[in-house]
Amino acid sequence: MITDRPLILVVNDDGITAPGIKVLIEEMQHLGEVVVVAPDGPQSGMGHAITIGKPLRLDKVELYPDVEMYKCSGTPVDCVKLAVNRVFKGRKPDLCVSGINHGLNNSINVLYSGTMSAAVEGAIEGIPSIGFSLDDFSYDANFNHCRPYVRSIAAQVLQNGLPKHSLLNVNFPNDSFDLQGIKICRQAGGRWVEEFDERLDPHGRDYFWLTGKFQLEDRGEDTDVHALQHGYVSVVPTQFDMTAHHVIPELNSWSFDIPND
Amino acid sequence: MITDRPLILVVNDDGITAPGIKVLIEEMQHLGEVVVVAPDGPQSGMGHAITIGKPLRLDKVELYPDVEMYKCSGTPVDCVKLAVNRVFKGRKPDLCVSGINHGLNNSINVLYSGTMSAAVEGAIEGIPSIGFSLDDFSYDANFNHCRPYVRSIAAQVLQNGLPKHSLLNVNFPNDSFDLQGIKICRQAGGRWVEEFDERLDPHGRDYFWLTGKFQLEDRGEDTDVHALQHGYVSVVPTQFDMTAHHVIPELNSWSFDIPND
Repeated sequence: MITDRPLILVVNDDGITAPGIKVLIEEMQHLGEVVVVAPDGPQSGMGHAITIGKPLRLDKVELYPDVEMYKCSGTPVDCVKLAVNRVFKGRKPDLCVSGINHGLNNSINVLYSGTMSAAVEGAIEGIPSIGFSLDDFSYDANFNHCRPYVRSIAAQVLQNGLPKHSLLNVNFPNDSFDLQGIKICRQAGGRWVEEFDERLDPHGRDYFWLTGKFQLEDRGEDTDVHALQHGYVSVVPTQFDMTAHHVIPELNSWSFDIPND
Repeated sequence: MITDRPLILVVNDDGITAPGIKVLIEEMQHLGEVVVVAPDGPQSGMGHAITIGKPLRLDKVELYPDVEMYKCSGTPVDCVKLAVNRVFKGRKPDLCVSGINHGLNNSINVLYSGTMSAAVEGAIEGIPSIGFSLDDFSYDANFNHCRPYVRSIAAQVLQNGLPKHSLLNVNFPNDSFDLQGIKICRQAGGRWVEEFDERLDPHGRDYFWLTGKFQLEDRGEDTDVHALQHGYVSVVPTQFDMTAHHVIPELNSWSFDIPND
């Protein structure tokens, strides 16, 4: 593992056997030395969850030639923490890339996404980090149109670094589009409107499957949703300071009346 | 449940039997009609995770007088989604409060915290939302000094609302402090430095417990960490737009060279 080439950590949330991470590994092998630490099974929708109530497993696996790979029993964020602390042991990766996710992580999905949370954790650790996602949930999604963009964006980040406390959220239209290029965007406003699917188990007790529809609440032409709808690769610079700085003055004008009781 | 009093959703991440949520329920009963939807067990560190790979249970329970309560098998964010969609069924709560968490959720902990993620989800749903947390992890933590502040802050939010797409992250010093009042703050910069505790199972295989120490990387006097260290209740306005808007101009100056292959 000792080399002069950049050291690149690859992680995802669909699990270490997902086709999307294989594409990402292949593209990163053009740019540096690749180490993979990825979940041993699907961890979609895990957001920034970490595992604190039970222990974690980390096991070496051999799936692809010339790649050091580990599967982890925890969440995507656990993978990054274990990579930094146990796999690299002091040597800091030059880049952390997450994905390529089978499914979009634009707009509000940045919060729910294990793919993006792994990249956020990389950025918290001070590693230039990028999350990649494709607008195709299927197992046999076609990632080929993403490849040159993935490599180019990662190469730019390796060359330029990223401003402190920021990372990139990159989303691709599916292969029905002729890609129009890259657009730097902001996260579109929107939310999921839930429609829980209620069923009865064989014992007559009800249970619920979480489903829903994404509802766009932002028609801005500078958003990731707009870029993707028009065939562009969306790149949203993302941060983990969640302070609503613009709200501080208003709150300072409130008078908090503290009851005595 | 039909009433003219404000309708208040109470949620947490320590689970429905935690002492902290009991305190929150009691204080909210002074302000309105309380409905609780909380996890059936501990969900600390679950961040913004949602449950998509397995179904959810939602069961009515009776723990405290005059409170409609449901326990949920999912994450804190699942609880809010089920509350909005299945429990309230069209009637929108006037307030969503989460906690009181046994343990701080200041600084970077806002990302890992199920307590805060539940409040974030409330805000995404358009409900004025507040997360409350105490600097004491213990089961028998003393919440009494928090009570008047919890009630005052919630009353203010019921009265004023909150700016669109924002919520409040409220943290309390433990009961060794004489509280100095409320400070409106920003999220302090900092991160967890992991120290995985490596052990051998009875079969000789290694496993890891996630532990770590919080490392403050921000000496600002306007941060939540600083306020708490000086005996103040910290109130951080929080948002779920994670765009690093200030980074957009720099990225627009990059030239992405897309390889043909």
